[in-house]
Amino acid sequence: MNNHTPHDHAVNVLQVRRLGIDTYHEPVVFMRSDCPICRSEGFEAHSRVLVSLRGKNIIATLNIVTGDLLQNDEIGLSEIAWKLLAAAPDDDVTLSHAEPLESLSSVRAKVYGQRLSQPAMHAIVQDIADRKYSDIHLSAFITACAGDRLDVTETAALTRAMIAVGEHLSWDRSPIVDKHSVGGLPGNRTTPLVVPIVVAAGLTMPKTSSRAITSPAGTADTMEMLAPVALDVKAMRRVVERTGGCIVWGGAAQLSPADDILIRVERPLDLDSEGQMIASILSKKVAAGSTHVVIDLPVGPTAKVRSTAAAHALGTDMVKVGQAIGLHVDVMQTDGSQPVGRGVGPALEARDVLAVLRREADAPQDLRERAVVLAGRIFEMAGHTPPGSGAALARALLDDGRAWHKFQAICDAQGGMREPPQAAHTHVMTAPSAGRVVSIDNRRLGRAAKLAGAPQSPAAGLSLHTPLGTRVERDQPLFTMHAETPGELAYALAYLHGQPPIVEIANGQ
Amino acid sequence: MNNHTPHDHAVNVLQVRRLGIDTYHEPVVFMRSDCPICRSEGFEAHSRVLVSLRGKNIIATLNIVTGDLLQNDEIGLSEIAWKLLAAAPDDDVTLSHAEPLESLSSVRAKVYGQRLSQPAMHAIVQDIADRKYSDIHLSAFITACAGDRLDVTETAALTRAMIAVGEHLSWDRSPIVDKHSVGGLPGNRTTPLVVPIVVAAGLTMPKTSSRAITSPAGTADTMEMLAPVALDVKAMRRVVERTGGCIVWGGAAQLSPADDILIRVERPLDLDSEGQMIASILSKKVAAGSTHVVIDLPVGPTAKVRSTAAAHALGTDMVKVGQAIGLHVDVMQTDGSQPVGRGVGPALEARDVLAVLRREADAPQDLRERAVVLAGRIFEMAGHTPPGSGAALARALLDDGRAWHKFQAICDAQGGMREPPQAAHTHVMTAPSAGRVVSIDNRRLGRAAKLAGAPQSPAAGLSLHTPLGTRVERDQPLFTMHAETPGELAYALAYLHGQPPIVEIANGQ
Repeated sequence: MNNHTPHDHAVNVLQVRRLGIDTYHEPVVFMRSDCPICRSEGFEAHSRVLVSLRGKNIIATLNIVTGDLLQNDEIGLSEIAWKLLAAAPDDDVTLSHAEPLESLSSVRAKVYGQRLSQPAMHAIVQDIADRKYSDIHLSAFITACAGDRLDVTETAALTRAMIAVGEHLSWDRSPIVDKHSVGGLPGNRTTPLVVPIVVAAGLTMPKTSSRAITSPAGTADTMEMLAPVALDVKAMRRVVERTGGCIVWGGAAQLSPADDILIRVERPLDLDSEGQMIASILSKKVAAGSTHVVIDLPVGPTAKVRSTAAAHALGTDMVKVGQAIGLHVDVMQTDGSQPVGRGVGPALEARDVLAVLRREADAPQDLRERAVVLAGRIFEMAGHTPPGSGAALARALLDDGRAWHKFQAICDAQGGMREPPQAAHTHVMTAPSAGRVVSIDNRRLGRAAKLAGAPQSPAAGLSLHTPLGTRVERDQPLFTMHAETPGELAYALAYLHGQPPIVEIANGQ
Repeated sequence: MNNHTPHDHAVNVLQVRRLGIDTYHEPVVFMRSDCPICRSEGFEAHSRVLVSLRGKNIIATLNIVTGDLLQNDEIGLSEIAWKLLAAAPDDDVTLSHAEPLESLSSVRAKVYGQRLSQPAMHAIVQDIADRKYSDIHLSAFITACAGDRLDVTETAALTRAMIAVGEHLSWDRSPIVDKHSVGGLPGNRTTPLVVPIVVAAGLTMPKTSSRAITSPAGTADTMEMLAPVALDVKAMRRVVERTGGCIVWGGAAQLSPADDILIRVERPLDLDSEGQMIASILSKKVAAGSTHVVIDLPVGPTAKVRSTAAAHALGTDMVKVGQAIGLHVDVMQTDGSQPVGRGVGPALEARDVLAVLRREADAPQDLRERAVVLAGRIFEMAGHTPPGSGAALARALLDDGRAWHKFQAICDAQGGMREPPQAAHTHVMTAPSAGRVVSIDNRRLGRAAKLAGAPQSPAAGLSLHTPLGTRVERDQPLFTMHAETPGELAYALAYLHGQPPIVEIANGQ
């Protein structure tokens, strides 16, 4: 045989072409079926290909092209492949077969019911962060861990692995406090209130938040209506050093890059996984340097957690995983029977936040009270106030304007405060009959807000006028849909008209 | 608000462009991020989009394009999207949001540990066959059913569902016999021998086989070296009516289209699923009209089934599922400790088959004996011979040339017999020391054959010279690698040189 090797540069080389195709986190390359390398290497559609350029290596999924999209000596790169290789026009890349990933055998073992060790979990999460898993592999890992298939030890291992592969902030003070509200409750936007209250009292709270995964708005989406949130770690540190706190998007900070990738695949699967949820939440807290975290667990028939028993089990596991990774975790069950505040959607929720901070007369009191209770709990947990007196301090900081003043300082430090946009198209949904509001379906309300365009269209969503218990007359407004385009408004209304009422009225009460 | 509806044709229309990108079974569409529909509908990367053209509807995954690949009013279609829509240049398609698939809630229920009912399984399999599942969804379904997570009732439900969504053959005679060898044993190519033997005795055997999934050759790949195998149902029926049997690729016959789609995703996952394996095998038998099936279960430390206990459990489940769906199933455990015959790879295995049929002096006797035993069992199961005398009839049909004559007739009916190709590049692996062959690793041997190019390069693979127990001298050839290109040969050799010996020699025995 001759001396040809698998990495023979003279043969296995193609010129890059940026195709401008956004394949998210999964690097994809495009090659002609009749290109010499496809033929000599036996590559076929969905092959995993090792692509090398100036010492950078990525594993990409191959899409075969049969038309004239590419020349015979060209390879098309998706946006993420282009970025990871730091490619430039006319660059030549070298191609070879990707070795099977060792860590996939651990995923398979988990699928077959075995427990994952810390080293196994670490190898999986490292490969995910290195973008070596295809969507198919990510989906299998998520499914294998879904429901309650990760025990506390495995969840702690996953959390540690997620921390290990990301950036890590450390601070020269203590305690570093934090909070997290478990999702599923529309409008539950306490973070932009809790941070300025807590920071105004002199505590440090470097808060990272997520964008919406399956909800009409994440805290980062809402906060973005008021100030820039896509800050990297360096910028975030500057803000915290100047003001004592921040409210930024965690994805830009790269505190848990593996989790950011997993979330992209969890979304279309819509699977709940207790272990992954705990790891996702707590890994970001530890990576942000937090020492004390209060978890807000809303409980209600259409919230993410539906019973106090389930909330208790989840809360207990969170505290245990916290202990295993050296994080103080305190869990609070809260009312999850209806949305918090009035707005659902980034801009509409931001307006509620502003109303509370500015002490406007019609500010939503339920949102304000939740923020007060959570901030109070943080004060007590961190030893800043005696037990039982945290909420009073929080209330005082809101009432005298110090929280509002601090919020403006944080927004300025993040790049400048701004006003939320207003939607161009609205439609009022009214009561079909007189009576009392007896239930509100959080999930379907959230879905209507999403169909109206939230969170991609930031002004979209809805505004709820009648909380639980409100007495209404026939034709009285229940909620108002907001959309940026007529098409999106039409989608939301088509959905609402095809459903039983989301805000349920009991007659004669 | 205006009268715009979600299906407003004036607005939600784009002109198709065939991009020539092969995305396998998953329809993908490409749209510019700044195209009016993306913006008005809030579509983003990975959105599931309903695409309609002249009454045909598909659900496609959206890839966002940022460059100049497409015009603003164009939508790019992947090959499978183009084909499913039966699109032509300049056609306009209508776009809207795809409703969430109802059947995915059953997949989620299975992930959380619930059992799948027959209607739930049917809805899932129907949506898969209709290509409504993305790769991410398919991966979740496969993972949720992996290992032993499907019980016999669910496996029977999956089998029935797979049968229901595919083509179905019926014959005006009975019995219709069939066989299946469970994979994992290189070179176990008994089908092209069993079919002509059984058919030469007057039985009917319309055999459909698969291409390689994770092995260096499937029976269809091997048979394709000798005759065309990509016959549709009509052509297959013609062959069987003329000759009494056939050996064709099942994929072209569309007997179990959902299974064909699942297999494409199972391959990169490399997950074993007993339930899916049974459903995959038995659904195709029933769809082909079979009434009596012999299952060959090779057992060995590096075969797919590793212990007689595991084989017994699997065999019992196969018989039970057979009973549930009205199919006679008989299971035989066979020796899986080493490859069968000499060749591994499509052309090399085809040579072994020809040698046995032509009664050549050096024909591999182990392959011949296996075919004889399996054919004998079919004779007995179908009541064609008394118990204990099936093998003798099979042997007689091989010895007097009737099987060879029948094989030629089948090949002619399938489109004409041909000779297998010969690889241009070979390399002999020799014994590092004298001794006796004490073990052969089927899995790594298969992997070496695949790295050499099998099955995409049909002449590639390897030829084993020294079965278990052979006494060898130092430097005596153990096996010969075959490849069509120097690059593929280099891959295989790089792998072999980095491994402990695949053919293990014990010294001094």
